[in-house]
Amino acid sequence: MKLLERQIKSNGVVLDGGVLKVGSFFNHQIDVNLMSKMGKEIAKHFKDKGVTKILTVEASGIAFALATAINLKCNMVFAKKTQASNVTGEMYSAEAISYTRGTVNQLAVPKDYISKDDKVLIVDDFLARGGASNALYEIVKAAGATLVGVAIGIEKGFQGGGDKMREQGIDVFSLAIVDKMSPKKIKFRKQ
Amino acid sequence: MKLLERQIKSNGVVLDGGVLKVGSFFNHQIDVNLMSKMGKEIAKHFKDKGVTKILTVEASGIAFALATAINLKCNMVFAKKTQASNVTGEMYSAEAISYTRGTVNQLAVPKDYISKDDKVLIVDDFLARGGASNALYEIVKAAGATLVGVAIGIEKGFQGGGDKMREQGIDVFSLAIVDKMSPKKIKFRKQ
Repeated sequence: MKLLERQIKSNGVVLDGGVLKVGSFFNHQIDVNLMSKMGKEIAKHFKDKGVTKILTVEASGIAFALATAINLKCNMVFAKKTQASNVTGEMYSAEAISYTRGTVNQLAVPKDYISKDDKVLIVDDFLARGGASNALYEIVKAAGATLVGVAIGIEKGFQGGGDKMREQGIDVFSLAIVDKMSPKKIKFRKQ
Repeated sequence: MKLLERQIKSNGVVLDGGVLKVGSFFNHQIDVNLMSKMGKEIAKHFKDKGVTKILTVEASGIAFALATAINLKCNMVFAKKTQASNVTGEMYSAEAISYTRGTVNQLAVPKDYISKDDKVLIVDDFLARGGASNALYEIVKAAGATLVGVAIGIEKGFQGGGDKMREQGIDVFSLAIVDKMSPKKIKFRKQ
């Protein structure tokens, strides 16, 4: 999505350790016009897939998930992050390693909020090595629901998580894929 | 807002300690049709006030803030919660006590994301004693910005935080105000 790529080039900041900061317009302060267009773009790709529920993770995935849900006219739910390993039996949960932050979280969703009849679209702001997206996929499987695909704002292609999911046959649709980045230059994959 | 009141009566759950759970449709799983209508209703009230930015707090305020921002056509930002008291100088921060949860958080927003020229609308899912809304107001004042008002999904009127802010001359607009509640009955304030 050219508009997003331009914003990343103009306002994204590349830090050490493979970190791309886009908090000024995407996942902390939110450019609402851009976000609405991103939601529309995701909806266009998945519109004929019968999505019944969008699943994301707090906090930075919520706005993008809602923008998408408005356009797909379906409900959404977010997984909460907890350090506790003893999530209760009323929750579906899975472990998500964040390589960027060096943390491990349990992602948890109340069982009432996903049913086996749901066709779930996973939405998240970032996909790098795939820790969060794969954990959300574990939750979809635990619920016996069907995964329609994975919609991502910014994929760090050079970290490989997205391509590994594609190799499993999953429809991973990313609005921008960064294949290389340095403080001076960001190179996007042609899509 | 009658639609919201009906949903609270049908699907809200009153727990001990003055807790009203609405996670099945409002602040965890999100009924997107309802959320869009709530955003429109808030926008109708504040449309002529020149709002330039919406300020909320993670995680449960984000969806409602985005739904409002889409309708007011302005950008939004959320404060992050941190236990750390030594927030860096690049942040505006204020202490928020949650009486419901018995916790104290620092709410923090990067200084770059609010300017003295901003006309800020605070948006949050709940207002009880006003811990979070008042902390956000402290942040608005620290930035030298102007507060336009406070928009709330569900106000617990019996806990008084909203009325205290109104006494200060703040335009607190709540879509539903619960004046009394018990596991058997929820009574709304007439508006």
